[in-house]
Amino acid sequence: MTFSANIDISSRGFADIIDSTSRVKAAISESGLRDGLVSVFVVGSTASVTTIEYEEGVIEDLKDAIERMAPTGIPYRHDSRWGDGNGFAHVRAALLKPGITVPVMGGSMALGTWQQVVLIDFDNRPRKRRVAVQAVGDR
Amino acid sequence: MTFSANIDISSRGFADIIDSTSRVKAAISESGLRDGLVSVFVVGSTASVTTIEYEEGVIEDLKDAIERMAPTGIPYRHDSRWGDGNGFAHVRAALLKPGITVPVMGGSMALGTWQQVVLIDFDNRPRKRRVAVQAVGDR
Amino acid sequence: MTFSANIDISSRGFADIIDSTSRVKAAISESGLRDGLVSVFVVGSTASVTTIEYEEGVIEDLKDAIERMAPTGIPYRHDSRWGDGNGFAHVRAALLKPGITVPVMGGSMALGTWQQVVLIDFDNRPRKRRVAVQAVGDR
Repeated sequence: MTFSANIDISSRGFADIIDSTSRVKAAISESGLRDGLVSVFVVGSTASVTTIEYEEGVIEDLKDAIERMAPTGIPYRHDSRWGDGNGFAHVRAALLKPGITVPVMGGSMALGTWQQVVLIDFDNRPRKRRVAVQAVGDR
Repeated sequence: MTFSANIDISSRGFADIIDSTSRVKAAISESGLRDGLVSVFVVGSTASVTTIEYEEGVIEDLKDAIERMAPTGIPYRHDSRWGDGNGFAHVRAALLKPGITVPVMGGSMALGTWQQVVLIDFDNRPRKRRVAVQAVGDR
Repeated sequence: MTFSANIDISSRGFADIIDSTSRVKAAISESGLRDGLVSVFVVGSTASVTTIEYEEGVIEDLKDAIERMAPTGIPYRHDSRWGDGNGFAHVRAALLKPGITVPVMGGSMALGTWQQVVLIDFDNRPRKRRVAVQAVGDR
């Protein structure tokens, strides 16, 4: 079986990190998937999906690390060419990559107790984001 | 067909990098999968799975790069809130992400000769880790 | 259904970033896949696959960020042991990881308008690269 869903999420941008676990779980539940894979993939080139313990402190710690990897306050060629001012967002998204694929076993994602699926929106303005959820496997 | 397996791995933590290729291969062999996908995904929010040439020198080089990205010796908000002392581990795991998905063609993963599947345990203590292996495809 | 293809790509190395979207699309089209997953995975331990807007400025910005994460001009243990001079390439590939898995819905990858699938070859010489493309799902 295959199952497709789209999750629409409003973000504030600027490395806004949004816990999307319950919505992915709802899509899997709706699909009836028992065993297989689910891909959670953000459409667009200035956002990423990963997992983290969704705890306020470590969420800010992650933002600090991302700021070290691709700082906001340095010049980006993308900005001098296009004037969007979001060169840092493109670089961050390419480094953290757009999606994750999670095993589904017995109807549940193989996540740890504190391991949440999060969308990170790196863009420099609020965005409406679409996250594609695609399941493949057995009912 | 789908096939699920769990691989249990003991780690020493502190960016312990463990070659898990043979165990993933054994799971694929057991599954009988000929062509499809295998997802290798660590359960928990302080570890990651990637590929690398499992050579002693470059393993240490990777640890150095990870230390630059999310150093152990800087303050983390997670630690001041929770006292676990493993804020760096959470940040590293979110950046390197929990899993990989590998094509399986003709019964074998599409890995290069020197490309190994590794678990990296970022936590600040020894851990028993569970790696979920989920295959989907044709026998 | 499952479908396997290999895409062979010539690269110049040194973080050469190559837009591979049209070739992945051609493989999906040939497969007849309507709904499912496609894994795009580079064979070898000194290259990665990710997505980015394939725009000349941000491509160079990404190279700069990668240079900050794992610089070329620092000593690597891998090089002192093996003399290949490509320790930085191994580290970069492990950090950026070998592949991506993309949802396919209605015959198309769930990519944004400007979101391209790229191979990044980190090695320190020109290479012939093989990218494994594996699709799983429904026709």
